Amino acid sequence: MNLKAYDIKEVTVNDKFWSYEQKLVRDKVLPYQWDILNDRVPEATPSYCMHNFIAAGKLNKRRDELGKKFIEPKFTYRGFEALPEDPKNPKDDEFYGFVFQDSDFSKWIEAVGYTLATHPDAELEKIADEAIDIVCDAQLPNGYLDTYYIINGMDRSFTDLRDHHELYCLGHLIEGAVSYYKGTGKDKLLKAASRFADYVDSVFGPEEGKLKGYPGHEIAEMALFKLYETTGEERYKKLAEYFIDERGAKPLYFDMEHPTPKGQPYKIDFYHQAHIPVREQDEAVGHAVRAVYLYSGMADMARISGDEKLLSACEKLWDSITNEKMYITGGIGATHMGESFSFPYDLPNDTAYAETCASIGLVFFARRMLQLKADRRYSDVMELALYNGILSGMSLDGKSFFYVNPLEVLPEACHKDERKFHVKPVRQKWFGCACCPPNLARLISSIGTYAYTKSDDTLYVHLYMGSKLSINGTDVEIESTFPESGKVTVRTKSSSKEPVTIAFRIPGWCNDTYTVTGTDKLETSVKDGYMYVSGITDNDITFDFEMKPAIVTADPRVREDAGRYAVIRGPVVYCMEEKDNGKNLRSLNIDTDSAIREEITDEFGLPVTVLYAEGYRNIPKPGDIFISSLYQKFTGFETNPQTIRLIPYRLWANRGEGEMSVFI
Amino acid sequence: MNLKAYDIKEVTVNDKFWSYEQKLVRDKVLPYQWDILNDRVPEATPSYCMHNFIAAGKLNKRRDELGKKFIEPKFTYRGFEALPEDPKNPKDDEFYGFVFQDSDFSKWIEAVGYTLATHPDAELEKIADEAIDIVCDAQLPNGYLDTYYIINGMDRSFTDLRDHHELYCLGHLIEGAVSYYKGTGKDKLLKAASRFADYVDSVFGPEEGKLKGYPGHEIAEMALFKLYETTGEERYKKLAEYFIDERGAKPLYFDMEHPTPKGQPYKIDFYHQAHIPVREQDEAVGHAVRAVYLYSGMADMARISGDEKLLSACEKLWDSITNEKMYITGGIGATHMGESFSFPYDLPNDTAYAETCASIGLVFFARRMLQLKADRRYSDVMELALYNGILSGMSLDGKSFFYVNPLEVLPEACHKDERKFHVKPVRQKWFGCACCPPNLARLISSIGTYAYTKSDDTLYVHLYMGSKLSINGTDVEIESTFPESGKVTVRTKSSSKEPVTIAFRIPGWCNDTYTVTGTDKLETSVKDGYMYVSGITDNDITFDFEMKPAIVTADPRVREDAGRYAVIRGPVVYCMEEKDNGKNLRSLNIDTDSAIREEITDEFGLPVTVLYAEGYRNIPKPGDIFISSLYQKFTGFETNPQTIRLIPYRLWANRGEGEMSVFI
Repeated sequence: MNLKAYDIKEVTVNDKFWSYEQKLVRDKVLPYQWDILNDRVPEATPSYCMHNFIAAGKLNKRRDELGKKFIEPKFTYRGFEALPEDPKNPKDDEFYGFVFQDSDFSKWIEAVGYTLATHPDAELEKIADEAIDIVCDAQLPNGYLDTYYIINGMDRSFTDLRDHHELYCLGHLIEGAVSYYKGTGKDKLLKAASRFADYVDSVFGPEEGKLKGYPGHEIAEMALFKLYETTGEERYKKLAEYFIDERGAKPLYFDMEHPTPKGQPYKIDFYHQAHIPVREQDEAVGHAVRAVYLYSGMADMARISGDEKLLSACEKLWDSITNEKMYITGGIGATHMGESFSFPYDLPNDTAYAETCASIGLVFFARRMLQLKADRRYSDVMELALYNGILSGMSLDGKSFFYVNPLEVLPEACHKDERKFHVKPVRQKWFGCACCPPNLARLISSIGTYAYTKSDDTLYVHLYMGSKLSINGTDVEIESTFPESGKVTVRTKSSSKEPVTIAFRIPGWCNDTYTVTGTDKLETSVKDGYMYVSGITDNDITFDFEMKPAIVTADPRVREDAGRYAVIRGPVVYCMEEKDNGKNLRSLNIDTDSAIREEITDEFGLPVTVLYAEGYRNIPKPGDIFISSLYQKFTGFETNPQTIRLIPYRLWANRGEGEMSVFI
Repeated sequence: MNLKAYDIKEVTVNDKFWSYEQKLVRDKVLPYQWDILNDRVPEATPSYCMHNFIAAGKLNKRRDELGKKFIEPKFTYRGFEALPEDPKNPKDDEFYGFVFQDSDFSKWIEAVGYTLATHPDAELEKIADEAIDIVCDAQLPNGYLDTYYIINGMDRSFTDLRDHHELYCLGHLIEGAVSYYKGTGKDKLLKAASRFADYVDSVFGPEEGKLKGYPGHEIAEMALFKLYETTGEERYKKLAEYFIDERGAKPLYFDMEHPTPKGQPYKIDFYHQAHIPVREQDEAVGHAVRAVYLYSGMADMARISGDEKLLSACEKLWDSITNEKMYITGGIGATHMGESFSFPYDLPNDTAYAETCASIGLVFFARRMLQLKADRRYSDVMELALYNGILSGMSLDGKSFFYVNPLEVLPEACHKDERKFHVKPVRQKWFGCACCPPNLARLISSIGTYAYTKSDDTLYVHLYMGSKLSINGTDVEIESTFPESGKVTVRTKSSSKEPVTIAFRIPGWCNDTYTVTGTDKLETSVKDGYMYVSGITDNDITFDFEMKPAIVTADPRVREDAGRYAVIRGPVVYCMEEKDNGKNLRSLNIDTDSAIREEITDEFGLPVTVLYAEGYRNIPKPGDIFISSLYQKFTGFETNPQTIRLIPYRLWANRGEGEMSVFI
């Protein structure tokens, strides 16, 4: 199959839940982020992002003025993250921040593009236009646009593909430019991104004399496919395909580039998914974000080219992630060593990495798999990640963020145990390496484009949210109560009177317990977790998917969860917090026979369903000590009944620092 | 109190258990180790230890021959571990191995000294004498003796106390020299060590112009006290006291030495127990081996000087370790980050460090605390560490060793999860950094000196083992069945007819369930876990301490052990192995109400008691999946009864690679 995604302007989201999140992005995240990009937030690590573009622009101007007299800077390496010698006086002509700092602008402009598409805002658009002018001024005459090398010395550009993110910056620039173009119709940035892509195309490829490399951090692949689908230019598709096909070819490019990866903490090629050709890969390995970004590009290619082998690899990799390496929250990347996947079933709760960006990438991958096949195993995971491991990345006020989303937290360990320094017990203001907050912004502001795909006459509904869109002349209006309850109403109005089909996902979590009305006179069939309702013209269809609390266990091979339980309700995963349940959550047990009670609370802003489970706290009865007071002879437990209060995982750590645990 | 330790020659060990281990050391470990020191074991990492002494000796000879024409080598830094450019052709005049490589000889000669004391062996003594000649030839005329600086350039000696182990090498040299002197009566090495100590004394101290530093890796402190007690020379005591008193004084010496400890993975001063003066320390922190070596020296000083503040610090540190930071195996050091103590109650089983050397150091500390006060909280821990976390460090054949002693192992994790690369699922042949094997050798060969202390007329029995010794003219012969059963027979024969007192430890693990015979006509009283039997002349006293299997739980604050159980019998901690119980040990549960059955097996060489506990394997019953096959709705457990076989923890991994777990 080759299903189309909806463009941002084709879907109007008007949903209690998601519109709230989108408003947060518009009102809080984007303005804050713009201040960050311009180093105007005193308490946050300076970004230097716009600083760098301005510095590169000045250099360009001097080059123009001096002509042949201009002396190109000779490359000097100043670290993976460069900081001003005097932090109070950054120099006008130096590059600061991480080697990939440019991409922060690109992610911001991407979110701005989506936002302007649905919520025009002249003031924001003016700021964005000015920012784009600054960025475009930084572009070299040949199209190259990465300020790290423009400022530090172009003679070393494309000599460290493995670590230096130039192609990553290209990828994000394209994503940002396409979004802004679709949101505003303005193509200045799109042209700049295309020119950079053209330049890259002149440098890389199978032709003699061209470099045979590929991105160290993937994203250019899927971005180039997007650019191809936006502009219709075949060369972008070819370049993306080249990057995908070349990956893992022997001899390995990164090994040639870095002949002695001595002292590296991980296997480099593995880490970059460049250890073997992509069509031979069947286990998700290495850096989790890179992995799902690559797989997203592979899925694009499989769809566009009809490459069956690639599709098969994508399916295997999807299964590897979701059946062996995914937290119940939709988090992926079990180890902070290389921010990577661990081995199958190794899913420790308290040292999890589960980066917000990785779950976002999993959504990218899922949407692309859904364009190949409408199967709820993709959409169920997409929904799971969104309501849990992704939204947990942002605080209720939109001002602080988690990079790492653990499933169990003891604050003392985060502060004192260096093995858990990557785990933060409360969300942080901003990060020097700020991938997650802007990634959240661009995902949330474009959430409507993940909810649906279409063929000529069929609309596929993957996520339920209040929204309006159309399919083949039929307007579709959806009302949803997700994730608080499972009611969905769909009203269609056909102008053409040509009947259409709508394929509704039946969420896996309801285990086929649902009611549907309004389909009596329509033809229905169920396949791969979707109910296909055909013959729709002007209809009212309602679903009620059973959304009740349930206790879930992990595969027994997940050692850290053996004998433990998680509580879910619909797609929402719950957790215990110290605030509600006291210290030492590990000593709490749930009575699996008792009913779990629901309650709606207003304490988190929007009305939220919290749960109460009957349980008990087990403390060993006093016994003779064995050797020291740390150990004692077992004489039974003092079992104190305790009602356990559970809140949605995405909302944890919004009420101060304390213990948290998903598994009980 | 100021109790005396017994000298090696004063105790004859003739014990089923310990004599077997000592024979292993004599027959296997010492010869193997000597081959290692001389780089004659092809499959092991070369040590270069004797190579370095020979190289330094040659340099000395050239210096003698050339006199003033000799040009001293100018220091060149070649790494913390230097390796030959061509591993097949190490150069005669270069230093190789770790900066502390000399200490490997010292540990070997220490074990040789103890061994010769109790088991004369002309051939071994000849080898040792020749080795000592080589070592002494390496000593500089001024007494300095660390081949790292002698070869690489003396101009930088004592400029990196924090990292460069010169004073550590001094400490071990003294320990070795004293042992060899006591074992053989030969004082060549003792004189060399004393001269090195004299030189160090001329460099360090409170006097103007002297360095105000102290060891980066402690051991010199306790070694210098030993040298003082052996030679009677006050200056060694003063130097040791200086090192202890100066530690942690502001400004911190290591900070002055290393003004920018940038990129260091841990807080340096904390790591070296040099963050505050030792008398103010009340929490065991930093590198675990260094910590207990320091505390041992502090306990020596508290005893010798009668310093109450120091004694109080020692007691607090002891409590900090044993009540908050000790594994049930007697292992200490919960994190491999810096091989360090973690925060209180943080005792993860599968990422434990629990270095063999650290538990050995804990025994050193315990024996010294026992010289201050006969209290079974010290001797119980000493025994626990010996029978569990220390002997687990060596294979049954004495040829392979654990550095790290985890309480739970999944071999796949050791191979694939970089967070557990420090944990090995099977013992290793030898280590480049070979502290643990020789440390085991020196402890085991001198085990008799840990079993007893004495005052003028009282013998304190801390450990039970077959042995002969005397107290104030009364010969004492002890027969013991430890650790297989709790029977101990003590026969005394007095030549002086002056009655003596024997204080017998009543092991904490029997919780005062024991029988004693032969004391009817003697005066007995119990204090701090010791039964004092007075009026002994010619007597037969027998004890039978109840040694039966018991289930033990950890303090509920130890999160990783919450809801889990360990099985012990007497001082022996048991574990499950995959070999006996199948894969996925985490799904096994113990029925805490059933009796645990004992069986004696011959499968480990010596007869050993193994245990059988009734239990069950819990696997969730099939239920609806939640999102992916990794998670499912809970519908109950399939509970399959299974008898769990448990073997002593010290014997794990002697039957191939597999899962292991202490806690069930």
